[in-house]
Amino acid sequence: MDGAVMYAPGDVRVEERNDPEIVDATDAIIRVSAACVCGSDLWPYRGVEDLEWPAPMGHEYAGIVKEVGADVHTVKPGQFVVGSFWASDNTCEICRVGYQSACVNRVPMGALGAQAELLRIPLADGTLVATPDLPADDLIPSLLAASDVLGTGWFGAVAAHAGPGRTVVVVGDGAVGLHAVLAAKQLGAERIIAMSRHDSRQRLARQYGATDVVEERGEDGIAKVKELTNGLGAHSVVEAVGTQESMMQAIRSARPGGHVGFVGVGHDVAIPGMEMFWSLVHLHGGPAPVRRFLPELIDLIWKREIDPGKVFDLELPLHQAAEGYEAMDQRRAIKALLRP
Amino acid sequence: MDGAVMYAPGDVRVEERNDPEIVDATDAIIRVSAACVCGSDLWPYRGVEDLEWPAPMGHEYAGIVKEVGADVHTVKPGQFVVGSFWASDNTCEICRVGYQSACVNRVPMGALGAQAELLRIPLADGTLVATPDLPADDLIPSLLAASDVLGTGWFGAVAAHAGPGRTVVVVGDGAVGLHAVLAAKQLGAERIIAMSRHDSRQRLARQYGATDVVEERGEDGIAKVKELTNGLGAHSVVEAVGTQESMMQAIRSARPGGHVGFVGVGHDVAIPGMEMFWSLVHLHGGPAPVRRFLPELIDLIWKREIDPGKVFDLELPLHQAAEGYEAMDQRRAIKALLRP
Repeated sequence: MDGAVMYAPGDVRVEERNDPEIVDATDAIIRVSAACVCGSDLWPYRGVEDLEWPAPMGHEYAGIVKEVGADVHTVKPGQFVVGSFWASDNTCEICRVGYQSACVNRVPMGALGAQAELLRIPLADGTLVATPDLPADDLIPSLLAASDVLGTGWFGAVAAHAGPGRTVVVVGDGAVGLHAVLAAKQLGAERIIAMSRHDSRQRLARQYGATDVVEERGEDGIAKVKELTNGLGAHSVVEAVGTQESMMQAIRSARPGGHVGFVGVGHDVAIPGMEMFWSLVHLHGGPAPVRRFLPELIDLIWKREIDPGKVFDLELPLHQAAEGYEAMDQRRAIKALLRP
Repeated sequence: MDGAVMYAPGDVRVEERNDPEIVDATDAIIRVSAACVCGSDLWPYRGVEDLEWPAPMGHEYAGIVKEVGADVHTVKPGQFVVGSFWASDNTCEICRVGYQSACVNRVPMGALGAQAELLRIPLADGTLVATPDLPADDLIPSLLAASDVLGTGWFGAVAAHAGPGRTVVVVGDGAVGLHAVLAAKQLGAERIIAMSRHDSRQRLARQYGATDVVEERGEDGIAKVKELTNGLGAHSVVEAVGTQESMMQAIRSARPGGHVGFVGVGHDVAIPGMEMFWSLVHLHGGPAPVRRFLPELIDLIWKREIDPGKVFDLELPLHQAAEGYEAMDQRRAIKALLRP
């Protein structure tokens, strides 16, 4: 089968890889209907993070079950399924309280390479959620989005306690940030402030429910948020970038007692203890437990109440994966969908 | 009147100061029945934190109202009152959600010097809570404790989501840590692990409800907590020290999805973003909004259901304040109570 492999920063190739096979009785093999390039794939692409080269790439996927191991009982061949970027048993003590991304038996899907024609899914019963039926083709981008980028934005909004009566700031206008806007809207937030200086992203943010757009960054951005919130700061802030600047902007944009949900993978971020102390904010985030939200997200997509697939503004055949990486790296595309 | 003044690190003197007077119509003047030395007073005493020397000291107090300004309506002369170490209006948007320590009109009581015979209380209506009657003398230490050290430990436990079915770790065996143990017990925690290597503090921790004591620190302490929690870490951790080591010990002792409440004033603490990310813990803390808890705490003390005053293992007349500082600095005393 074909699959994308990164050989070095900036060097992504689609090449022949071995077909995956059932290894454990709890595995499933799926035929990938759609995969995509993640903002986090850009860290190694840009040389910020090291991988064991050459590295199979991709951890977001939706597709049709081809084969299941002897111990798989909740999904069967022929079903359309979506899973998280962490495989999880969904039965351990950590999973049961909704932190499947820290499942005691978790397996990172990134190591298996979802940007490919076929994909092995460990712990299939705990990881995969089937759709009610085979989806219409135009629903596939949205279902794929649920696999990570929507689930991650949703977790950011939940971690930030977005909800009725609350003002939510979203720092970051990538796909995750845009989905955090969508999530805040669905969760009933009263006011949603998107921090963005890109026309097309601002437009999508407004479609997803942003009531205000702030173009300023850093101290100016914080001042603007304060101006919009009676001098107090926002109740909820989602950090969806992962830099020192964005993390501090998020913490400083929240009011005392407010909640910051962070889902940006913070490379070289250090949070000063004294500032965290005096801010009196709640801070929560990390690798999103997408599995917690999948049934609800699939349901919303299935009923066409949300359209997270709009973040895919570039669709390519799998064999052009390299172009997807390049377009996202150069910010020509918000997010690239790959069709095997 | 007499009051304690710090002239430089290690140099505390009790000297004649001007009697405080009503400045704003919302002020009250109280005759201090008891004040005390705080762990945070030791930062400048040890030269870790600078003050504007000479500095009046003390921010914990309980006493009898002597005089009130024209706009004070909820307390009156002759009543016994307890207040927080932050004066707060208790009516602003931040106070109303329980973050009185970040009241938009807050005044730090430390600047006024509570280790004195008389004390001006700004925003008296919002700050002070009267007891049902004049208290028995043996209740005074506990009521004084509510002013900061109990309220701070309580906030730590609340921030850590201590409660039924949960295992709570308390890092720090100072008065705040011991009160966090007491709070966790009152909040219904199932198991309470006190981290302490001091005999007398371990004993008090057990009296307050600790079910386990861990003497190890750092990585060994974390390993011990994991051993006691099925390898997962605790649901709740209270950080009541304020060093890099204690903060990391707290974060690493919590399970994914767990809650860390931190009330130690973190000098030179920096929380690595990647570690915070992968930990998936909730982090919340800061200067405790003691006013939120005062009515409940006073009620528990009044009914003699809790005895937080036990942390005072040294009682001195005000004019011997210097000895109180020295004893706490040398860890000869957990906490020193001063009687003007």
